[in-house]
Amino acid sequence: MTTEHYFALIMAGGSGTRLWPLSRQARPKQTLRLVGDRTMVQLAVERLDPLFTPERIFVVTAAEQVGALLRQAPQLPAGNFIVEPLQRGTASAIGLAALFLRKRDPEATMAVLTADHYIADNETFRRVLAAAYEEAQQGHLVTLGIKPSFPSTSFGYIERGELLAEIDGLTAYRVNAFREKPDAASAESFMADGQHTWNSGMFIWRVDRILAEMQKQMPRFYDQLMQIDAAIGADRESLVLSYVWPRVAAQTIDYGIMECADDVAVIPADIGWSDIGSWATLLEILPGDKDGNVVIDADHMNVDTRQTLVYGNNRMVATLGVSGLVVVDTDDVLLICSRERAQDVKKIVEKLRTNGGTKYL
Amino acid sequence: MTTEHYFALIMAGGSGTRLWPLSRQARPKQTLRLVGDRTMVQLAVERLDPLFTPERIFVVTAAEQVGALLRQAPQLPAGNFIVEPLQRGTASAIGLAALFLRKRDPEATMAVLTADHYIADNETFRRVLAAAYEEAQQGHLVTLGIKPSFPSTSFGYIERGELLAEIDGLTAYRVNAFREKPDAASAESFMADGQHTWNSGMFIWRVDRILAEMQKQMPRFYDQLMQIDAAIGADRESLVLSYVWPRVAAQTIDYGIMECADDVAVIPADIGWSDIGSWATLLEILPGDKDGNVVIDADHMNVDTRQTLVYGNNRMVATLGVSGLVVVDTDDVLLICSRERAQDVKKIVEKLRTNGGTKYL
Repeated sequence: MTTEHYFALIMAGGSGTRLWPLSRQARPKQTLRLVGDRTMVQLAVERLDPLFTPERIFVVTAAEQVGALLRQAPQLPAGNFIVEPLQRGTASAIGLAALFLRKRDPEATMAVLTADHYIADNETFRRVLAAAYEEAQQGHLVTLGIKPSFPSTSFGYIERGELLAEIDGLTAYRVNAFREKPDAASAESFMADGQHTWNSGMFIWRVDRILAEMQKQMPRFYDQLMQIDAAIGADRESLVLSYVWPRVAAQTIDYGIMECADDVAVIPADIGWSDIGSWATLLEILPGDKDGNVVIDADHMNVDTRQTLVYGNNRMVATLGVSGLVVVDTDDVLLICSRERAQDVKKIVEKLRTNGGTKYL
Repeated sequence: MTTEHYFALIMAGGSGTRLWPLSRQARPKQTLRLVGDRTMVQLAVERLDPLFTPERIFVVTAAEQVGALLRQAPQLPAGNFIVEPLQRGTASAIGLAALFLRKRDPEATMAVLTADHYIADNETFRRVLAAAYEEAQQGHLVTLGIKPSFPSTSFGYIERGELLAEIDGLTAYRVNAFREKPDAASAESFMADGQHTWNSGMFIWRVDRILAEMQKQMPRFYDQLMQIDAAIGADRESLVLSYVWPRVAAQTIDYGIMECADDVAVIPADIGWSDIGSWATLLEILPGDKDGNVVIDADHMNVDTRQTLVYGNNRMVATLGVSGLVVVDTDDVLLICSRERAQDVKKIVEKLRTNGGTKYL
């Protein structure tokens, strides 16, 4: 079904702070063991087997994280790690990676994937990726849409239009519109009408097609890419990249390309996808004990405790008469918050940033 | 007012587990810094100044604790530490100490004091002790009664009878009866009638008087005391003590002496006394921030937190959207419980004892 022209690009440059204090600037979400004994980036790599061989899996990341990622995914060729000197948004990272992939294979199709999301059904995920490859060969920019499980106001939505194709039991639709994070009422109606899916941030397209789209919609950035492209593989590669990249305007792929692109397709994917947007998500996706408690890396002494997440640090955590709590124990910081407020962990991070607590960031 | 015949005996042998995980078998409540930068035993010693010079302050404790106590009260003469080979109840500890005090001063009067209670008003406390000394010279066994601030079912009560004396603005009454920990209805009526005070466990009496009472009410124990008394100061002191003491029947001073003694007096004392019976007590007695949070030894990052005790371990504790919690952070154990359930910390300790968690006791 798939071919040697299909490449995976794992986006692993995020610096997420919503899982503080476990996630830090120097230890972002994709490098953490959140859902078992594998880190998020390890899961992102391993779930691609056997669809993509290690030689066809690329990782784009930031300079401060590449060391950790090389250790976590040692089966990948070192040359498959693409390092941004600075982070300039998803459009820029994808454009940079597209250059490297085109050098490797002028006929390359790339699957832009994430390392900071959880996927429960890896087999279906690979089936979706295989179908998306077929659709991308028609010149479509393919997005993966996630069927909403609740009326989230934290995600963007994709409104589907006419049916384009049926492939291996999956369906591809033309995209009518991308919707930014909606208000609560819109989210309810998006969920009810069956026409909307969450924007997963995963995309599949031919490399020549996305570069052409960048030339059209982001001409200044495309010129910068061409300066870099001319230097790739030459002695001056690093010099050019470190000169050009700080001058690139930060841009996301959604705003920079997708919202105004022609010929965009969506494949609704039922793959057990979860954003792990906060500590509370782990209480939802991980199996709990009979009282709904989820305990990771802790010797938990539980008396009358319910619906509580204990992310430990290999010591004893005793809980008594509490419910709906999130407890995260790290070497230098202990976090205790109610699960309802888990999204507001970023408020703590903001306070630390402004109140001289940068050593905890 | 007072004389060189007045001695303080600080009872510091308790092994309390209600303040676990800070208090442990080898680190009991009286050795902890619970209410500031001084340990409980340091507070117990220091609040006696200037009524008792260090030479007239004795400490009775258990063998496994004496090392810590010597370091915490270095101003006391080493010879003033009386060590029980095993704990045999308060009556036994007081009897043993009485022997040593009688050797020091045949005319000694002893104030039996506690190291695991909090006293806010030390000046009044010393005035009460001075008045009790006067009353003890009349041959009374004097107890200090605490005016109930709530209808506790955790304390014993003392019912007062006729007025015996007025001394320095304080009053001494004959004791009608000691009441064991009452049920809720009795506690309400004790609180309402104005005739009952809490039994503080603090007593003042002449040493010859308490030894005579032991001879009368606890004759077997008195015989054992006399065996020890004959050996005190001799080479065989330790040998005799270690032979006799394990054979002493454990007994409290309340059951062994007070309930059936004649001529017992009570001085109601308004001294800001608190038992610190659980972590929740610290939330009541220590000054909190504007949201009622009490923070000890922690760098506290607070977002929307109320009525929460954070007893830290010199690292950052961040709390978000929680209320009425107790958080105790130690090297090997983290405790999180609701303040309403703080009394049940002992359930955790019991579970640890039976489930192979003795290293945490």
